[in-house]
Amino acid sequence: MESAVSVLVSQFKAHAGSDGSPDTLSRDEFHKLVKSELPNFVKNADDPAVVDQLMSSLDNDSDGELSFLEFWQLIGHLASKHGGFSQ
Amino acid sequence: MESAVSVLVSQFKAHAGSDGSPDTLSRDEFHKLVKSELPNFVKNADDPAVVDQLMSSLDNDSDGELSFLEFWQLIGHLASKHGGFSQ
Repeated sequence: MESAVSVLVSQFKAHAGSDGSPDTLSRDEFHKLVKSELPNFVKNADDPAVVDQLMSSLDNDSDGELSFLEFWQLIGHLASKHGGFSQ
Repeated sequence: MESAVSVLVSQFKAHAGSDGSPDTLSRDEFHKLVKSELPNFVKNADDPAVVDQLMSSLDNDSDGELSFLEFWQLIGHLASKHGGFSQ
């Protein structure tokens, strides 16, 4: 379990580090991450409007960037759906 | 990233399915999971009092069981700490 968590942290950092703040995802970084890392979990991952809407719903403080914990909420909901847990 | 998420879901289910409800962690199941799966991320993972306190802090609806999303909050905080993100 710890190694799977490390993988998620590393992949988040790899994307978050492409531009601007190294610890948060910009809109562009988020689009690339969803498209490349979550193509099966996120429906219409290649539709910019879908991904923009998803990002707005996660960006609790509306600063235009996703922190790790904001991003984590998404993964939790996708994981919960994937696992068939009641939401 | 999707495969790492699947690993976390499978390991949660493997523990949650030991007794009672197959989709939630009882106190015993949570103790075993922390001890076996998160020995480095949770300090004093083998101290029952520490793990009981951790469980209470996560059990938002105080039903004595941890749902997947309650458990996910813990993993997010551990991951955030592990990754050196500001909390």
